[in-house]
Amino acid sequence: MAKFQAPKGTRDYYPAEMAWRRYLEGAWQRVSIRNGFEEVEGPIFEPLDLYKVKSGEGIVSELFHFTDRGERELAIRPEFTPTLARMVAEKANALSKPIKWFSMPNLCRAERPQRGRLREFLQWNVDLLGTDSPVADAECIYTAVDLLRELGLTPRHVKVKISHRDVVRRILMRFGVAEDKIQDAFELLDRRDKIPAEEFNEQAGKLGLDQSTLERFNQVARMRVGSQAAWDDIAEQFAIPQEDLEDLAALHEQLKAFGIAEWCEYDMGIVRGLAYYTGSVFEVHEVSGAERAIAGGGRYDKLIEMFGGPSTPAVGFGMGDVVLTLVLADKGLLPDDVTPAADVFVLVADDSARCKMNGIVGALRAAGLHTRFSYKTTTNVGKLLKEAGQCRARFAVILDAKTDQQNTVSVKNLQTGEQSETGIGELVPVLKG
Amino acid sequence: MAKFQAPKGTRDYYPAEMAWRRYLEGAWQRVSIRNGFEEVEGPIFEPLDLYKVKSGEGIVSELFHFTDRGERELAIRPEFTPTLARMVAEKANALSKPIKWFSMPNLCRAERPQRGRLREFLQWNVDLLGTDSPVADAECIYTAVDLLRELGLTPRHVKVKISHRDVVRRILMRFGVAEDKIQDAFELLDRRDKIPAEEFNEQAGKLGLDQSTLERFNQVARMRVGSQAAWDDIAEQFAIPQEDLEDLAALHEQLKAFGIAEWCEYDMGIVRGLAYYTGSVFEVHEVSGAERAIAGGGRYDKLIEMFGGPSTPAVGFGMGDVVLTLVLADKGLLPDDVTPAADVFVLVADDSARCKMNGIVGALRAAGLHTRFSYKTTTNVGKLLKEAGQCRARFAVILDAKTDQQNTVSVKNLQTGEQSETGIGELVPVLKG
Repeated sequence: MAKFQAPKGTRDYYPAEMAWRRYLEGAWQRVSIRNGFEEVEGPIFEPLDLYKVKSGEGIVSELFHFTDRGERELAIRPEFTPTLARMVAEKANALSKPIKWFSMPNLCRAERPQRGRLREFLQWNVDLLGTDSPVADAECIYTAVDLLRELGLTPRHVKVKISHRDVVRRILMRFGVAEDKIQDAFELLDRRDKIPAEEFNEQAGKLGLDQSTLERFNQVARMRVGSQAAWDDIAEQFAIPQEDLEDLAALHEQLKAFGIAEWCEYDMGIVRGLAYYTGSVFEVHEVSGAERAIAGGGRYDKLIEMFGGPSTPAVGFGMGDVVLTLVLADKGLLPDDVTPAADVFVLVADDSARCKMNGIVGALRAAGLHTRFSYKTTTNVGKLLKEAGQCRARFAVILDAKTDQQNTVSVKNLQTGEQSETGIGELVPVLKG
Repeated sequence: MAKFQAPKGTRDYYPAEMAWRRYLEGAWQRVSIRNGFEEVEGPIFEPLDLYKVKSGEGIVSELFHFTDRGERELAIRPEFTPTLARMVAEKANALSKPIKWFSMPNLCRAERPQRGRLREFLQWNVDLLGTDSPVADAECIYTAVDLLRELGLTPRHVKVKISHRDVVRRILMRFGVAEDKIQDAFELLDRRDKIPAEEFNEQAGKLGLDQSTLERFNQVARMRVGSQAAWDDIAEQFAIPQEDLEDLAALHEQLKAFGIAEWCEYDMGIVRGLAYYTGSVFEVHEVSGAERAIAGGGRYDKLIEMFGGPSTPAVGFGMGDVVLTLVLADKGLLPDDVTPAADVFVLVADDSARCKMNGIVGALRAAGLHTRFSYKTTTNVGKLLKEAGQCRARFAVILDAKTDQQNTVSVKNLQTGEQSETGIGELVPVLKG
């Protein structure tokens, strides 16, 4: 029994797990950059008050918080958005618009670990601020899809479920929900899959949605839209004016133009409970409904003001590593071995050559080649070549009885088995060529 | 005045700062991998007790610590070594030796921010466990030098100052320090530059080093060694048996063989106060003595046992980002602009072509090209090309009056000014070719 273990809900990354983490982070970073987003980062802890701005006092019980020696209340970050909002607010005038930022922070939440939720996890954040154009909402969704595709997922595996707060608000009001109950209705819809149907119906009734209206809303909410014609059909079928749907129809046009319509579905049951969303909202889900949401986001045009900045329209999303990894594993899309393979393995086949080893290893590394050698003192070439194989080296450089006197070594291509003699001075060009 | 600011002693990374951080982390990672180290990571917080194992109760005041809802005492990591020791101890039997690990964690210390010290910083950790060969000590030092060289530093800028606890112990004992005062003597030597000379001399006297012995020790400590002859000279000059120096002489041979002798100095004043070092100790310093140590490390053969693992010889070092960055800045070695340049900027020169923009942008990104476009609705090509220049795009793809009807665009090479017409379907091969 080990004396110490990793804290509950956290992970140790041994080399194989770390290589997978870097593979995922590499995909997040590559996709972000090619979509024109610039990387940012912030502190691992922030003033506790920063997290109350958008989430209220209720957030405190979910945070790991502490006081420093100056009695300042601090908390380990449970999300990146407040840091982003603070950073934008602080330099709003100096930043050219639109601001397109991404980050890949580790975040901590003091909640009970369970499937798909850990106490420390990674989250890819993508945010586009300074424009209210639906092109921005579509570009964020495109970026999420670009990442899913990059990892081998297809529309058969995952879908982006899209809604729009204004559209849902208009329909709910048209169906009888009073304006001052809309926020409650959003929160209820968000909890729909988490509470018993009876409780849901009872709550809905209190908000003005009786059983038959609720059924009508459900039909609208779960509509499937593929073309302009379908939007018209829906408007007609449910006796909703077309302009009630126009925000979603406009976003749909942009997504179609980006070529990702087949990845997208419209689902007005998606409202996302967080009060700060103001327009589009979307979640990425595994198609069968297995697992929690892979990603979630939307438009939040009021948030930068809440953090003391100027009025700044904004849209963005977050994608955690935990659920994404579960889905990739389930689909057989986790790559086999992503640890870096060695370029060269230097081995000593004759003890007279051992004095040359460090020098050759150092010269190859200085030339940028990933170079390994054995700490074993054996000169058994078979055993040493086995070690070379374990680090997946492309070449073995064999120091033999002639090396010390004649400054030559043998180079063995470990893929073809081909072997030839080379002067030590020629080694770098031979191996790089 | 902004409503919120980053906590004292922490940093916000806007895109330019983040690009520099990635540049530095990229160098750490590249150099680690080519030297055969594998990356690992651990949790951002650990049980508070984990940090008391090697540092005692005294460490607690330097930590950001807190309790979770299960009343477990936790702390944000102030260093990575305890996590590494825990991870090695937990899987010691399953890990093949030697274990060569690196990591680049963010660490937090609740100390007063000052030049070269922040409350949150990055630290490159390089550790080699499972062999007591001096080749391992030399390989770690080589890896540190390989990084310094990778960033443009030379032996004119920085030196590795090397000592060895056993050598210093033998000399101190030969000069009259009792065996049970050796640890106190190490701690005193470590504080030499931090306390007044008078206090140092008084404390040294108590340990058995009178004024003339201390001067003799100083001469040995600050010796300059370049060859075997010099080691012999020192032994003779100070009437020390050659075997008293043999650990350093053996390490020196290995460093010379790695081709980095000119980066290394021997300085027995370097003992590093931490009690857990058992053999070689070393620090990287700016040559003029400006700034704190850039890196520090050494051999710690007893540590894994302290964390409940099997007896495991080990050597390693840590290099923070803060002092390193100050030194690079001072030497003019900070690169100018390391933010990623765009491959392509797509611009709409005629409103009839706007309907094609998303599709072209999406197709280029899906092909891996870093593609930007303007959120401005102007069709003024001059203004749009200026925006293309700001993101350092190599190509502009111009959508014009013919684009919508004929599916053609103009491709402008922004380095040469050359411009030609291309079918939309040919765009990817044209831009990638």
